[in-house]
Amino acid sequence: MMIPVSEARKLIDENCRGNRGEVLRLIDALDTALSADVLSPIDTPPFHQSAVDGYAFAYASWNKKAALEVIGEVQAGNMYAQAISASQAIRIFTGAPVPQGLDTVVMQEKVEVKDNTIFIKDELLVSGANVRRQGSQTKTGDAVLKKGHRMTPASISFLASLGITEVPVFAQPHIRIIVTGKELVPPGGSISGGQIFESNSFALKTALKAMGISPVSVEVVEDDEAMIMDAITRALDSDIVILTGGASVGLYDLVPSSLAKCGVKEIFHKVKQKPGKPFYFGTYGDVLVFALPGNPAAVLSCFYEYITPAIGRFTGRQYQKRLKMILAHDFQKKPGLTTFMKGKTKGNTVFILDHQESYLMNSFAHADALVELEEEREVIQKGDLVNVLMILF
Amino acid sequence: MMIPVSEARKLIDENCRGNRGEVLRLIDALDTALSADVLSPIDTPPFHQSAVDGYAFAYASWNKKAALEVIGEVQAGNMYAQAISASQAIRIFTGAPVPQGLDTVVMQEKVEVKDNTIFIKDELLVSGANVRRQGSQTKTGDAVLKKGHRMTPASISFLASLGITEVPVFAQPHIRIIVTGKELVPPGGSISGGQIFESNSFALKTALKAMGISPVSVEVVEDDEAMIMDAITRALDSDIVILTGGASVGLYDLVPSSLAKCGVKEIFHKVKQKPGKPFYFGTYGDVLVFALPGNPAAVLSCFYEYITPAIGRFTGRQYQKRLKMILAHDFQKKPGLTTFMKGKTKGNTVFILDHQESYLMNSFAHADALVELEEEREVIQKGDLVNVLMILF
Repeated sequence: MMIPVSEARKLIDENCRGNRGEVLRLIDALDTALSADVLSPIDTPPFHQSAVDGYAFAYASWNKKAALEVIGEVQAGNMYAQAISASQAIRIFTGAPVPQGLDTVVMQEKVEVKDNTIFIKDELLVSGANVRRQGSQTKTGDAVLKKGHRMTPASISFLASLGITEVPVFAQPHIRIIVTGKELVPPGGSISGGQIFESNSFALKTALKAMGISPVSVEVVEDDEAMIMDAITRALDSDIVILTGGASVGLYDLVPSSLAKCGVKEIFHKVKQKPGKPFYFGTYGDVLVFALPGNPAAVLSCFYEYITPAIGRFTGRQYQKRLKMILAHDFQKKPGLTTFMKGKTKGNTVFILDHQESYLMNSFAHADALVELEEEREVIQKGDLVNVLMILF
Repeated sequence: MMIPVSEARKLIDENCRGNRGEVLRLIDALDTALSADVLSPIDTPPFHQSAVDGYAFAYASWNKKAALEVIGEVQAGNMYAQAISASQAIRIFTGAPVPQGLDTVVMQEKVEVKDNTIFIKDELLVSGANVRRQGSQTKTGDAVLKKGHRMTPASISFLASLGITEVPVFAQPHIRIIVTGKELVPPGGSISGGQIFESNSFALKTALKAMGISPVSVEVVEDDEAMIMDAITRALDSDIVILTGGASVGLYDLVPSSLAKCGVKEIFHKVKQKPGKPFYFGTYGDVLVFALPGNPAAVLSCFYEYITPAIGRFTGRQYQKRLKMILAHDFQKKPGLTTFMKGKTKGNTVFILDHQESYLMNSFAHADALVELEEEREVIQKGDLVNVLMILF
């Protein structure tokens, strides 16, 4: 019944199908991935452009021994459209269009100015110098960014410079969160006999927010089958449903049976891992349903290990780096379960933090990584390589 | 006049003073840094809590050879308040409070049940087993997260579990952006003779958004001293002003002189770097004023190299990692300027991308790092270590 971590990953991956595209305003597309190639609608630069403040002239007809007469000026944003003869030059500024018929710009520092003439003192000047040629960055119709490309600030700036205002991207999934447990009280209230403060919705909402995703809803329900089934039924209009609590097989663990009664197909229940052994995954059509145990550390571990990559399949993004790092100290664990340990990295070294029990969040609050120790691994020595999942980004 | 990069960094750092605190709702505090220690208002767990489904009993008075009578049950969220004698046990579920007078829980898998009695078959069971002691995570009054702590999802979940709803954090700076250049047309319009699409505001707005910061305003103004001075005057009510374009010393580079006329004190102008040589930094009281050249690649390079760390001084955060990485290929540059090259990392290796000119953004769109090559450096060989600033986070 209990499957290994690798099998759980494979089964989730195989069931990720719901990927869809949408068109976003360019300025809103940060950190999305393109769902199609983007073609350049224009040449950039859109004209031959001066790279410096200087003087533009025609190189081929230039008499190197003679001065050039400066007959006009062109700034960025202007044009110089009059006729220019061989012995003439135009004062030009950075970003301005090089007038028709001219092809070379000499920097202002490299000329001798006398009245309205210049004498060029630049031995190394070549034809075409200091000119950014039209289309030298993009040509009209070029696929300038490919499907799957992550929209970084630089990517957005680049597309803006092509005049683009909208981009096709992979849509974010709609996610609903259901937190179960009759012992839960919202923070800000007061707790008594057996109650604890509800914190898992805070973990999930902010972990999603860090990925740029707003969950559609968060519901907190008691351990009552009718209430849980009602919440599940309403949540199944989304792309991903995440439940916490009641995922085990105890007398009051009502989530897996409620999911079954709601028509959710169990793909697996229980994984050879710690924390998060009771982790459940199912599907309802294309809807992915994750049921996590109620322990806060198990919730976030499962979120980072399984749900983040599943969301990445949906959004076409890879959010996390998986690295091999050097363990900074000896460590020992029992064989049989893969363990996800809260870790703190420093350069290419990682420390396993104290307080790893699944009900403790004080160490998780200081973690920037999960250290993954494989099922069979028992004794790990200082200096050994371990698998690390970076969780802050 | 032109100062080295290290000097520019030092001067900016010395002038960062504007840091202030504010109180945010916990759920809104993602990725802020605490401006004061946070104390735990309660013990957690708030009571002795069962870690498993099983049976609770008093270890010291337990007769190991006799069965225990199960006289009641307690679930998470409930209390069991009746008297319990030495030979009795209580059915208990994960998360439930251990009844007063009891101290140990045996897992349900480790007992033989017969009618309403259990016989414990757990040779290794010790006093206090499977109980999470009250206060074992936090004690009332403990400084559980320190000033400066980054509010990760796990940190937010942790504080929620203590019942906390608000946290003291370093406020985000108010930032105003002024883009200058009469050649600029907003994307979506059409360009003619000498015009180009305005893209720098897109770069800056989304780079700030990636840090969770919304600029207060973006203004695009022509190269006209009165208009620029007007925009500057209005912007000086913020914490940080970022200008682009007109930062050089050409005839139409009106920004430094306009800033001077507005009472901004120049700290430096021009840095021995490429791109971004004309980079200007000044102050107006505690307001930081950065004037960047108009070239898109120079804008983002200066933003990542200088403005991001300055914002970090304000918010108490470190946004970027500076790493040493192995250069994947030979590279050559002229001495004299520090160069910031668009790079792409793979593991601990970095590649310098093609198309490094400061007007080109197509390579920046693919970069995840800036490779910093020092002034004096000329020939770098494949395998040499180089300084890398990670720009995506």
